[in-house]
Amino acid sequence: MAAGLAATGLVSVSATTEAANSPMKKVFVHHVFFWLKEPKNVEARKAFEKGIHALVKVPQIQSYHIGTPVESPREVVDDSFTYSYIAFFKNSADQDIYQTHPIHLKFVEDCQHLWEKVIVYDAIN
Amino acid sequence: MAAGLAATGLVSVSATTEAANSPMKKVFVHHVFFWLKEPKNVEARKAFEKGIHALVKVPQIQSYHIGTPVESPREVVDDSFTYSYIAFFKNSADQDIYQTHPIHLKFVEDCQHLWEKVIVYDAIN
Repeated sequence: MAAGLAATGLVSVSATTEAANSPMKKVFVHHVFFWLKEPKNVEARKAFEKGIHALVKVPQIQSYHIGTPVESPREVVDDSFTYSYIAFFKNSADQDIYQTHPIHLKFVEDCQHLWEKVIVYDAIN
Repeated sequence: MAAGLAATGLVSVSATTEAANSPMKKVFVHHVFFWLKEPKNVEARKAFEKGIHALVKVPQIQSYHIGTPVESPREVVDDSFTYSYIAFFKNSADQDIYQTHPIHLKFVEDCQHLWEKVIVYDAIN
């Protein structure tokens, strides 16, 4: 099991802790929020989703999460975005390679007309 | 290996894809950004870090990432926060339990004087 977990490069757990309360291994988190111009337009969403699923083929990406907002009445929660996209990288250098990778550039070229706002948060542990 | 990876509850990979380009398994991402009142105050940071490391003991948390910003000159990147904290939950119900868990309430009580701004983004895949 230890070898299997190590292979993900993401989660550091022991055989005794397993699923719960596991710190992620050292990883560069690249979290991007997209606000589409037409968030309810099915064709726009389909085009964006096609683009983002192509984007995650960039080989430096270890793992990724493509999500949509969970609505909340709490004021502190921003649930106004259309898509959440997290890419996990081994380190900052890999994220730099990703930024100028042809697949990434093509994603921006193909899809940037779809969104009106983007916020990126990069964090390392 | 498959059993080991499944135990993390986070990453879905096959023996052939392993580390790269792996979609996360279905998971509720709870990403919180904190802006401390005194981001350069060592004591304030120490108190916050003590608090957040206590917080992640809430049993519904499958995995977590506690990070700091990666500076970027790109306008689209918000690197102004002091701490990034991601908790991964199995589902929305577990996140609801977490919100009112005594450990969470204690964290807010003990540490809320440290921050001036918080933004939460919740996303599911």
